Amino acid sequence: MKKYLAEFIGTFWLVLGGCGSAMLAAGFPNVGVGLLGVSLAFGLTVLTIAYSFGHISGAHLNPAVTIGLWTGGRISSKEIVPYIISQVAGGITAAAVLYLIVTGNESSIGNFAANGYGEHSPGKYSMLAAIVTEFVMTFMFLLVILGATDEKAPKGFAGIAIGLSLTLIHLVSIPVTNTSVNPARSISQALFVGGWALSQLWLFILIPVAGAALAGLVYKYFKTE
Amino acid sequence: MKKYLAEFIGTFWLVLGGCGSAMLAAGFPNVGVGLLGVSLAFGLTVLTIAYSFGHISGAHLNPAVTIGLWTGGRISSKEIVPYIISQVAGGITAAAVLYLIVTGNESSIGNFAANGYGEHSPGKYSMLAAIVTEFVMTFMFLLVILGATDEKAPKGFAGIAIGLSLTLIHLVSIPVTNTSVNPARSISQALFVGGWALSQLWLFILIPVAGAALAGLVYKYFKTE
Amino acid sequence: MKKYLAEFIGTFWLVLGGCGSAMLAAGFPNVGVGLLGVSLAFGLTVLTIAYSFGHISGAHLNPAVTIGLWTGGRISSKEIVPYIISQVAGGITAAAVLYLIVTGNESSIGNFAANGYGEHSPGKYSMLAAIVTEFVMTFMFLLVILGATDEKAPKGFAGIAIGLSLTLIHLVSIPVTNTSVNPARSISQALFVGGWALSQLWLFILIPVAGAALAGLVYKYFKTE
Amino acid sequence: MKKYLAEFIGTFWLVLGGCGSAMLAAGFPNVGVGLLGVSLAFGLTVLTIAYSFGHISGAHLNPAVTIGLWTGGRISSKEIVPYIISQVAGGITAAAVLYLIVTGNESSIGNFAANGYGEHSPGKYSMLAAIVTEFVMTFMFLLVILGATDEKAPKGFAGIAIGLSLTLIHLVSIPVTNTSVNPARSISQALFVGGWALSQLWLFILIPVAGAALAGLVYKYFKTE
Repeated sequence: MKKYLAEFIGTFWLVLGGCGSAMLAAGFPNVGVGLLGVSLAFGLTVLTIAYSFGHISGAHLNPAVTIGLWTGGRISSKEIVPYIISQVAGGITAAAVLYLIVTGNESSIGNFAANGYGEHSPGKYSMLAAIVTEFVMTFMFLLVILGATDEKAPKGFAGIAIGLSLTLIHLVSIPVTNTSVNPARSISQALFVGGWALSQLWLFILIPVAGAALAGLVYKYFKTE
Repeated sequence: MKKYLAEFIGTFWLVLGGCGSAMLAAGFPNVGVGLLGVSLAFGLTVLTIAYSFGHISGAHLNPAVTIGLWTGGRISSKEIVPYIISQVAGGITAAAVLYLIVTGNESSIGNFAANGYGEHSPGKYSMLAAIVTEFVMTFMFLLVILGATDEKAPKGFAGIAIGLSLTLIHLVSIPVTNTSVNPARSISQALFVGGWALSQLWLFILIPVAGAALAGLVYKYFKTE
Repeated sequence: MKKYLAEFIGTFWLVLGGCGSAMLAAGFPNVGVGLLGVSLAFGLTVLTIAYSFGHISGAHLNPAVTIGLWTGGRISSKEIVPYIISQVAGGITAAAVLYLIVTGNESSIGNFAANGYGEHSPGKYSMLAAIVTEFVMTFMFLLVILGATDEKAPKGFAGIAIGLSLTLIHLVSIPVTNTSVNPARSISQALFVGGWALSQLWLFILIPVAGAALAGLVYKYFKTE
Repeated sequence: MKKYLAEFIGTFWLVLGGCGSAMLAAGFPNVGVGLLGVSLAFGLTVLTIAYSFGHISGAHLNPAVTIGLWTGGRISSKEIVPYIISQVAGGITAAAVLYLIVTGNESSIGNFAANGYGEHSPGKYSMLAAIVTEFVMTFMFLLVILGATDEKAPKGFAGIAIGLSLTLIHLVSIPVTNTSVNPARSISQALFVGGWALSQLWLFILIPVAGAALAGLVYKYFKTE
């Protein structure tokens, strides 16, 4: 149970920190943190949980990561469902807390940091551009995760590399899709937005999972003798 | 005595660096560091003291941290009062130095980076939003601290994880309350502002302490067999 | 073959992340990541690959780095050609993916983050300024790489130092040349821009290689008894 | 001789990177790196040299640091003069290279990132504010250096803590004095500006050295039994 609670808390932190920064601080007048601050916030949620709860649950915080670690042979299939349930529940709880805070100055929730493509892409990028971006970014995210936690990699540094790779991913792709690479983060925000966000949600579940699953298989090549 | 002096110096640095950046550099015309720079400054005060004075005092720098470490079973109750006195004294000394610098170009001290809610919240967030924010942020801050300093966590990396978690907290919550999660930092600034800042100070003492105390108790669950 | 695939993937990531951030996110209205975000993105590509694929290929990701490591006596001459081919192929593949994404909202590709001098320098700096900048920056980049991977340097930290030195280089020199210090990154972008970018490409191949080669020779002095 | 060359190269990098970012990239239209980028650049020069040349010379890169390490009992008095000569020579060489680059688009050199107070302070802060700022910042910089390199501090992390403490110092104090805390960096820029910069240079030599010297003495208290 401890590892499921750790995944719940960690994904709560990821959505609270990443989406919270996007909603509360990115566009604050004159001194807002911008997309750079949001990118840093998402990455630091992972970095901080990796060092504090990584020894309990491995700090996946993301169903795509759990799937990619499974196709990469790092976890057993019976872990998948409870991990994903814990992650999605943590994300939704964070979205509820954010809803309470964000509406605390009488403003509307806007897009609530939900992911989108086409007319709901921050930069109006097409569905194809969104698919390519989410696939490639999640694929590379998993390669970094698998490589940095390899037994041959420098000990202790994985949390820095993995967290900052999520920052990097956001530094590129927020304008395209608001950046998912994480179905839990997409589900939690879409539930509060409803409508278009729910109808586009399939992309932000299927594509990150597909990219992650392929990365797990590719990484196995590097481990062959 | 050395550890109390270390806490004094460390909290001096936290307030000087974090609140100093907010007052002197955040809104500098055209090239100001913004809320992102302030968030980084607060985090780096903790990161730098953790690596330089952590081996002397543990680098709490924050009464809420001291309380959370106590409820988490990491320190004895007789440390609490001298640690908190040292921290508050360090913060007030930093505020005095900042007063001298900030008024050195004849400008008013403005809000002096004091914490507030309602009409004194940077983004006009309600008291309820402020309570939720400060409680959750301090709760998570302590979980990161307790987890990253756990004997099973990677050795040496706690200072990075803890410092950058404070950066993350600021990347989300400056617009709500100017971010406290630290009664020493709130007391020092409120004393120089007086009036509204003193009358709202109770929230920034009680709520961070409550969030931290609960986190200490929750973390004990992770340590049960 | 594994190390060549690792160089291909790593350089793909460098161009995708660094040039992608420059094209997609730097100038996003109101909340763009700016040159600071782009600088961070380039550095984090190297940092993340260093920790995840460094144990496979050494994570050069850059023909100038490969040359500098050779003149510094770290790799054998037979590695040079396959490493450089892998790097250039990875960069071109990333540029193709970026072309697909960037044109996904019907906008033109602009300068496609290509390197340039004179009227194609972001800040209109002369060819001489460009030569000095690229030479000195690549020279120092290689000294940091050679020093941080020296057997006497602290173990495990090289990826942080090397990645963040590339961030630092961009924090200074994007306005001068859009920052190359890496012929693979210059070639990939110039191929898609054509015209002026191809005609100025010689500088961004020759000068970084010259700076890197000299650094390898200079570093040998530090290793003499 | 190797350690003096290392100090020359390292201080060259500090001035090239820190002052270069300030002059070339801070105010670049729309996407400039701002004071936050400059703060990061200064810190990363120290971080990168600490990990690459720290094992050769200790990576002081700053006469005030050399003095503070001497009063703290870490180096012998016969090192002081050659270290300082190497540092100042490296800084001046960097300023000469920057002069060549900065004038490469026909613009004037402006304040050349020189340090100043009163009407030459970026934010028009008084001489007293400048003295307090430089004294306290250099004092704290040396405490972080001495603490992070203490034999009881976590191994290997000193370069991160020390480099990022310089970033922190800039995040607070650029508006006051353009931030010195380093006489070598002040001398090199003042020589190219002449006039007011030379006439104010005394403050940026005397005050950082005084703050550093006191920190060395204070830190000895922490090492008493």
